[in-house]
Amino acid sequence: MTHLQGIAASNGIAIAKVYRLEAPDLSYSKNEIQQPDQEVKRLHDALDVSKSELEKIKAHTLETLGQEHADIFSAHLLVLSDPELIKPIEDKIKTENVNAEAALDETADLFINMFKNMDNEYMKERAADIQDVTKRVMAHLLNVTFPDPALINEEVVIVADDLTPSDTAQLNKQYVKGFTTDIGGRTSHSAIMARSLEIPAVVGTKDITAKAEKDSLIIVDGIDGNVIVNPSEEDIQSYKEKQADFDKQKQEWAKLKDEATVTSEGEHVELAANIGTPEDVEGVLANGGEGVGLYRTEFLYMGKNQLPTEEEQYDAYSSVLKQMGDKPVVVRTLDIGGDKELDYLDLPDEMNPFLGFRAIRLCLERDDIFRVQLRALLRASVHGNLKIMFPMIATLDEFRQAKGILDEEREKLLSEGMEVAGDIEVGMMVEIPSTAVIARQFAKEVDFFSIGTNDLIQYTMAADRMNERVSYLYQPYNPAILHLVNNVIEAAHAEGKWAGMCGEMAGDEIAIPILLGLGLDEFSMSATSILPARTQIRNLSKKELASFKKELLSMGTAEEVVAFIKEKTESQ
Amino acid sequence: MTHLQGIAASNGIAIAKVYRLEAPDLSYSKNEIQQPDQEVKRLHDALDVSKSELEKIKAHTLETLGQEHADIFSAHLLVLSDPELIKPIEDKIKTENVNAEAALDETADLFINMFKNMDNEYMKERAADIQDVTKRVMAHLLNVTFPDPALINEEVVIVADDLTPSDTAQLNKQYVKGFTTDIGGRTSHSAIMARSLEIPAVVGTKDITAKAEKDSLIIVDGIDGNVIVNPSEEDIQSYKEKQADFDKQKQEWAKLKDEATVTSEGEHVELAANIGTPEDVEGVLANGGEGVGLYRTEFLYMGKNQLPTEEEQYDAYSSVLKQMGDKPVVVRTLDIGGDKELDYLDLPDEMNPFLGFRAIRLCLERDDIFRVQLRALLRASVHGNLKIMFPMIATLDEFRQAKGILDEEREKLLSEGMEVAGDIEVGMMVEIPSTAVIARQFAKEVDFFSIGTNDLIQYTMAADRMNERVSYLYQPYNPAILHLVNNVIEAAHAEGKWAGMCGEMAGDEIAIPILLGLGLDEFSMSATSILPARTQIRNLSKKELASFKKELLSMGTAEEVVAFIKEKTESQ
Repeated sequence: MTHLQGIAASNGIAIAKVYRLEAPDLSYSKNEIQQPDQEVKRLHDALDVSKSELEKIKAHTLETLGQEHADIFSAHLLVLSDPELIKPIEDKIKTENVNAEAALDETADLFINMFKNMDNEYMKERAADIQDVTKRVMAHLLNVTFPDPALINEEVVIVADDLTPSDTAQLNKQYVKGFTTDIGGRTSHSAIMARSLEIPAVVGTKDITAKAEKDSLIIVDGIDGNVIVNPSEEDIQSYKEKQADFDKQKQEWAKLKDEATVTSEGEHVELAANIGTPEDVEGVLANGGEGVGLYRTEFLYMGKNQLPTEEEQYDAYSSVLKQMGDKPVVVRTLDIGGDKELDYLDLPDEMNPFLGFRAIRLCLERDDIFRVQLRALLRASVHGNLKIMFPMIATLDEFRQAKGILDEEREKLLSEGMEVAGDIEVGMMVEIPSTAVIARQFAKEVDFFSIGTNDLIQYTMAADRMNERVSYLYQPYNPAILHLVNNVIEAAHAEGKWAGMCGEMAGDEIAIPILLGLGLDEFSMSATSILPARTQIRNLSKKELASFKKELLSMGTAEEVVAFIKEKTESQ
Repeated sequence: MTHLQGIAASNGIAIAKVYRLEAPDLSYSKNEIQQPDQEVKRLHDALDVSKSELEKIKAHTLETLGQEHADIFSAHLLVLSDPELIKPIEDKIKTENVNAEAALDETADLFINMFKNMDNEYMKERAADIQDVTKRVMAHLLNVTFPDPALINEEVVIVADDLTPSDTAQLNKQYVKGFTTDIGGRTSHSAIMARSLEIPAVVGTKDITAKAEKDSLIIVDGIDGNVIVNPSEEDIQSYKEKQADFDKQKQEWAKLKDEATVTSEGEHVELAANIGTPEDVEGVLANGGEGVGLYRTEFLYMGKNQLPTEEEQYDAYSSVLKQMGDKPVVVRTLDIGGDKELDYLDLPDEMNPFLGFRAIRLCLERDDIFRVQLRALLRASVHGNLKIMFPMIATLDEFRQAKGILDEEREKLLSEGMEVAGDIEVGMMVEIPSTAVIARQFAKEVDFFSIGTNDLIQYTMAADRMNERVSYLYQPYNPAILHLVNNVIEAAHAEGKWAGMCGEMAGDEIAIPILLGLGLDEFSMSATSILPARTQIRNLSKKELASFKKELLSMGTAEEVVAFIKEKTESQ
């Protein structure tokens, strides 16, 4: 029995056997071969198995995640049937008498490098496709297992060093009962997606991959961050009880699904959800969300080989808006770059990607990409209650430029005879300290603010939230953060605007009373946090919490803040 | 004639021929050789030439930069005479019949890898030495020129992609008339050192290395950022005149060397200098500096293969304090990490080094290193007017910890019977937004603040100042920056403390009137900026500038701020 402590990333308990998700070893030796025909046959066998796997994955993805995700695999299938790639591999085997592995690798490399260096986006995308597909074929040639999380068809807990967003996108809730990783934190993308999929998860265990063998039984306790490999009967029993308790508590919470979110004195605040895809809306409604406070559109752009078309985007945005009815949906425009890369955009490598060319910075330079998204959003606006917000705004000038482009596209659409909603609010993320400091100046020009605490905290404290050596500085309760949040809320209210928050902090048990006291209007969080938050807020007095404001803002450390809030709320 | 526009990094005009500083191509082929004895002789010839070069560099460095820098080369010389390295190379040539290049490279690699992987700092340093020296020997084997900026003995302008701090440390002002680079900005280290050495420099030209051939004539105009390769006679004439005008202006400035820095109404502010080594003090005094506002101690730790001892540090600090007499000297404790790496410390690679494990974060964990520096400082304190400040403080807790360690070391020294000055002020850099936001809380516990604008701006705007794609966001005059600076000054004054600034902004012509109006007490800048700043301040009314404060702080953009200040100061 091995016990590990990690970071509780997504609520719930999972008990199942270990499925290890690892990058396979695809090294090979280049050999001279005697029977080229047999070698060509080996190649075609590997190609055929790969194709049939990809067909299965594609069908499965279409069913669970929709057309958009399935398209990735259509592109991969095309590559495997392309004679312009396959013929040169066969020729190489026959003329140079080399084994299929070497012929595949060297020929594919040739194409990949050629396409990559072309100044043509379409060709660069093809290079990425060939790279992906070659790995799968190589694995079959080498008889090495190629992991396909989408194909898992028995109950498992995934154990991995880390999960990429596209790994996570392929997870099937029916079989994947939970996951646990070596690295990552509560705000890493896999953790956020786990909460959105409602899969229990423990991240940042440091060495679960060294401790958990394939098929051993494992318990993942996403409530308290425990992981147990080869648990005792006693453990299994006690965690089954914990799971039952958790289910019972969930049922209690569920009773509030259709209730209003009001403080003890009856004042309403809005509890909204953060989503990544149209499929997430179901969970928002099931958890009683009063709106979508953050729709992260970058998933439309990720895990594929080309930019999404205006139609694909229109479909996705319309689907979310229709499902949400008249409830507000705040869509964040493309936030790519930093830790979220797109192979097909060929972004420059940067020394400090978190301080680099990303989000609105990229969109203002690549307005060809930006305009397509804005058109899709404007067209979709007639289907619901759309609000648009721009990420990573640092200066007033950037906000004005972005809004100017939006207005241009609106005019164009109207002159093309298209319909656009007349009342779309346009706001911005407050996640860069400069904007929080002079929020008053911004408040005159925006319709709303949404405070992105994940980034705001890391910039304000100058500490990379993914870097474990400085993670002690990622302090949501630091008085400096509270000052900035307070400044944003006061600025918004002074100009008759509203202020929300869509970082992880908005759903945090300690932060909620503080934010309520500071006057936050909208809290946007993982869907699964909404009902616990509603339960908590119904027992809190906003008036009393507001009376602590001055004292809280004059404190020196995060520890003082936490101790104070705990004391005050326990007495409520 | 080729004209390039870059970033003016250090004042003055240089006209001389091009010296290209490039990393040599050291690739070789491994060959079977027939006469091993001859090959061993080739090896020893290369070793001998390398030794004699290193002797020259060492002597030259000792003369121009002092013992500390010269020690690097003593270590290198030791390696070249070490039979434990040389013998195996000879053996390899003789037993395997390979050429000297292959024998050298493979043997050196073996040692480097062995030493690198030992858990012993001393051995890791030896690995770095071997690596450096092997390159020089390899260059001689291949008959490739190995560039030694310290050996330049005719008037040149250096052209390079970039200059490392150790390249810059080797420059000899007598012959190196200026330099120009492809990359870098006004606040990159080479630019800062150029100002400190008073060598004209233009950085960030993007492609000067592609445009300037060896030995062609080149003009570097560090006043306006122009570079001209193969200039016309007319250009040469006009830039000689510009140089004469500049020299004349310098003479005007020089008249104020012993004058007080006072505003038009006679109020005094302090103009101090930023320095990196004891050798820089001469320039501070020659330029009429009233103190050292920032002594960057990391140069003691860089460009060598081991940590500086307590004695080496004591000597350096004492030298600066003695030279400055009763003028204040603010010493910043070790700020390493980020873009300033130390090979021998084996710091982890980080995804975002500017948001990572550096400066006080590293010193609090590696307090063995920190305590040596603090002891050296405390012991040196009796020789002058020492003030100590900690870099990269993010939380009150970090400041308390650092100050606690300082107090412990003071007690230890006193109990050892050592003398320590009784009145050492202990302050902190304000370069992380969190500390500027709650400066009021910090002001109760520190003796002074020094605002480090280079970092404060990059964190507040979330824009890496070294990344050209987001350099438009590095905005010193952004109203958010002015708010934070104002907050720090007000907090200091409310608690009876003083606030200085040691970022590049403190010496900036546009910023000076703003900062004066906000009430900044001390301005620390490149020594060469002091006299121009004194000239400017004598013509400014602090009272009038202070009356603009409210208006400035309510502005929305940096452009508005600049336009406003230009209008107001032109009328003064």
